[in-house]
Amino acid sequence: MLEGVLLLLPLAVSFCYLEWNCISSFAIASASAFITGILLTLANPRNKVIFAREGFSIVTFAWILHSLIGAVPFVLSGEIPNYADAFFETVSGFTTTGASILENVEAMSKGLLFWRSFTHWIGGMGILVLIMAIIPADSGRSIHIMRAEMPGPVVGKLVPKISDTAKILYLIYLVLTVVEMVFLLAGGMPVFDSVVYALGTAGTGGYGIKADSVGGYSPYLQWVIAIFMVIFGINFNLFYLALLKRFKAAVKNTELWLYLGIIFVSTAIITASIYPVYGNFGESVRQSFFQVTSVISTTGYSTADFNLWPQLSRSVLFLLLFIGGCAGSTAGGLKMSRVLILFKSIQNDFRRLLHPRSVAAVRIDGKAVDDETLKRVSTYFAFYMFLNFAVFFLISFEPFDFETNLTAAISCVNNVGPGLGAVGPAGSYAGYSDFSTVVLSFAMLLGRLEIFPVLLAFNPKNWVSKHNVSAK
Amino acid sequence: MLEGVLLLLPLAVSFCYLEWNCISSFAIASASAFITGILLTLANPRNKVIFAREGFSIVTFAWILHSLIGAVPFVLSGEIPNYADAFFETVSGFTTTGASILENVEAMSKGLLFWRSFTHWIGGMGILVLIMAIIPADSGRSIHIMRAEMPGPVVGKLVPKISDTAKILYLIYLVLTVVEMVFLLAGGMPVFDSVVYALGTAGTGGYGIKADSVGGYSPYLQWVIAIFMVIFGINFNLFYLALLKRFKAAVKNTELWLYLGIIFVSTAIITASIYPVYGNFGESVRQSFFQVTSVISTTGYSTADFNLWPQLSRSVLFLLLFIGGCAGSTAGGLKMSRVLILFKSIQNDFRRLLHPRSVAAVRIDGKAVDDETLKRVSTYFAFYMFLNFAVFFLISFEPFDFETNLTAAISCVNNVGPGLGAVGPAGSYAGYSDFSTVVLSFAMLLGRLEIFPVLLAFNPKNWVSKHNVSAK
Repeated sequence: MLEGVLLLLPLAVSFCYLEWNCISSFAIASASAFITGILLTLANPRNKVIFAREGFSIVTFAWILHSLIGAVPFVLSGEIPNYADAFFETVSGFTTTGASILENVEAMSKGLLFWRSFTHWIGGMGILVLIMAIIPADSGRSIHIMRAEMPGPVVGKLVPKISDTAKILYLIYLVLTVVEMVFLLAGGMPVFDSVVYALGTAGTGGYGIKADSVGGYSPYLQWVIAIFMVIFGINFNLFYLALLKRFKAAVKNTELWLYLGIIFVSTAIITASIYPVYGNFGESVRQSFFQVTSVISTTGYSTADFNLWPQLSRSVLFLLLFIGGCAGSTAGGLKMSRVLILFKSIQNDFRRLLHPRSVAAVRIDGKAVDDETLKRVSTYFAFYMFLNFAVFFLISFEPFDFETNLTAAISCVNNVGPGLGAVGPAGSYAGYSDFSTVVLSFAMLLGRLEIFPVLLAFNPKNWVSKHNVSAK
Repeated sequence: MLEGVLLLLPLAVSFCYLEWNCISSFAIASASAFITGILLTLANPRNKVIFAREGFSIVTFAWILHSLIGAVPFVLSGEIPNYADAFFETVSGFTTTGASILENVEAMSKGLLFWRSFTHWIGGMGILVLIMAIIPADSGRSIHIMRAEMPGPVVGKLVPKISDTAKILYLIYLVLTVVEMVFLLAGGMPVFDSVVYALGTAGTGGYGIKADSVGGYSPYLQWVIAIFMVIFGINFNLFYLALLKRFKAAVKNTELWLYLGIIFVSTAIITASIYPVYGNFGESVRQSFFQVTSVISTTGYSTADFNLWPQLSRSVLFLLLFIGGCAGSTAGGLKMSRVLILFKSIQNDFRRLLHPRSVAAVRIDGKAVDDETLKRVSTYFAFYMFLNFAVFFLISFEPFDFETNLTAAISCVNNVGPGLGAVGPAGSYAGYSDFSTVVLSFAMLLGRLEIFPVLLAFNPKNWVSKHNVSAK
């Protein structure tokens, strides 16, 4: 039902631009969202307790249902006639990936372009977190939903009440988005463009409205977007701490410094690598910084076709595809905190080999990380690598080259968007078959929801044992 | 000193073929090995206790020293004038990688060709394990050396005495090598060729003497080599169990079935994929089976330029680059048992998410795997992936394409040999700069010795605290 309401926004946009075709498409989609919502409300389950298992399943099916309905306007308007393609485009939007099957984005109508970018904004913080922010619910239940939907290994409640936490997060999110919009407008960007790029940056999505993404805008606008991409890759808890004037606690965050450090080092290496291409230090720094922040925040905007850059730059960007932003941000990827925990685990194992009897704990931000979290992060990493490889294998039936298929798989799992080769910034996913499109759609969902929820939701055992519980 | 003796063997081969230039090179190398050995014997340490730390360091430095000396004949003979290249070639030999910088292997003299392949055989089971097999030593000391040198997450002693274990392993190794040689001779392969290919298969190395590797030999010979590649990728403990007629225990080994299962599935997929290329089912199966067994056993022989095969086949071979053979075999890579443990860990975490209070242990072959091993394997995997990525980054300064650099890095870390692109079966590592050659040499060492020993040996802290211990 919420999606029914949300779909009225692009309908309004279509109305402003007098796109009659789109208006009817959005109206029908909105109506079908409402009807589905009402039908689901009629189902009144006997057992209303939400455990981890139910949380995972609710989130997964909610995301799939939202994407299925969100794809409707694209098909009805005739602008993406293939439903599999439209589903891919919508999943890519909600998961803030930004991978597109459109070959000519500039030909799309405004209403649909707005809807594409708006899905980024909704998906960035989480569809169900938005519901929790709006509708008051029992905390005990909703923490499991929040855990399943929020990225990162650990979800902290900012305040005791979960619905208040959701409200605070969405408020920070909204304010930052508006601030970016104002900066973009101040740089002379048209209103519609500012809205679209602010929504796309905030959700770290990457859908734009130009064939050259952000390349055609002024250097000022490119810097604004790059800096906001960095900002939206930072843990939102830190903004909350800053709001409470607890700057010291915010600045002591190791994850933040690792994130900024990786951005700095990568930008430096790429600047040196592409300097011969541009022959201008200022421009090299801007191009390098923009592409680095775009990939590490998993946004996916571009100001240059980095696919044509020297090999060293392409290698660095390839490695950044995996890493992702901080936990608790709208970014995808493995997440900084996981990288940090993995490094510390390695260090710890190393020490244990030298001093078998030492029992030193792994510490992050001065706090000991418990063994359970360490183990879960290591296993997650193994699973995550297997997922990247599995998706790569499944789309290898396509006639594309090694580089294209490998980076397409990794880019989708990590919710970045562009890759190298045919799926580079100048390319698109249009050449993939329906089979691969659906595989990549699920790759994006698995990546965004961090694997376990989706797998659990589709685990037949889950439903069998659930049935047993309700039968008792 | 043992290397001094071992170097007399290629000297004898050179003598048979009247290669005077090589004879003097090997004589000088052998003499310098002896002198180094005697000099090292003169150093009489006060403290003779060998702990894990000393075991790791001894193995690492022994491998580097053996490679430094083993490279001498290549340089002195003038056939590989660049010492960095010769070092790469020798490390590639000892680590059983089989990556070569030679552009025309057929022009090499027989003595050097034999030495190249002989390094595979020595390195396959371990240089120091060989010493232990020959020279009786205190078990308490040598288990740490064996642990550092033998591949796989857990090293089991076959019999209580470590030197007896080493002897049994080398005996099985020798007998299997001779059996293969007999099969090759029976197929009409010349004597010298049979020796070289048997040594190369046994060590899962991959050095050959023909530009087209094994492609020019008869289908019978190709089948023999392929089957022996499978055999040398199996845990040697199983052969010992078979010798003791404990077939039941050998057949119950999960790792073995996973290994054979992956070979079967990969062969099936690639056969289907390359059938249109060869248009002949028998040949497609042979080509597919040979390349699959070559990559999974990390040998690296080839009967076809799989670089030119359809993308699906190349993707499967790319994924096999990582996996490797069974623990306790001469194969490199991640190892089957680690893959198995990782999968079981994921399964376990999955179950824990559903039933947070369950404490079911991870079981392999019916035995519970302790938490410490699970943790170590997960951390090892993370470190191993970082290593692959780091090596890829370091060699990205080269002008080669993405595919070449990525597969070169992975192929060296996993001790396979060939990759895709310019380092494919028809190519070589000749184009890499000295810097990358040295990086890749260390990548091979890190891969062969399974990372930790090498890093510990080069950890400055290690030496400082060691000094403290001896000062006490």
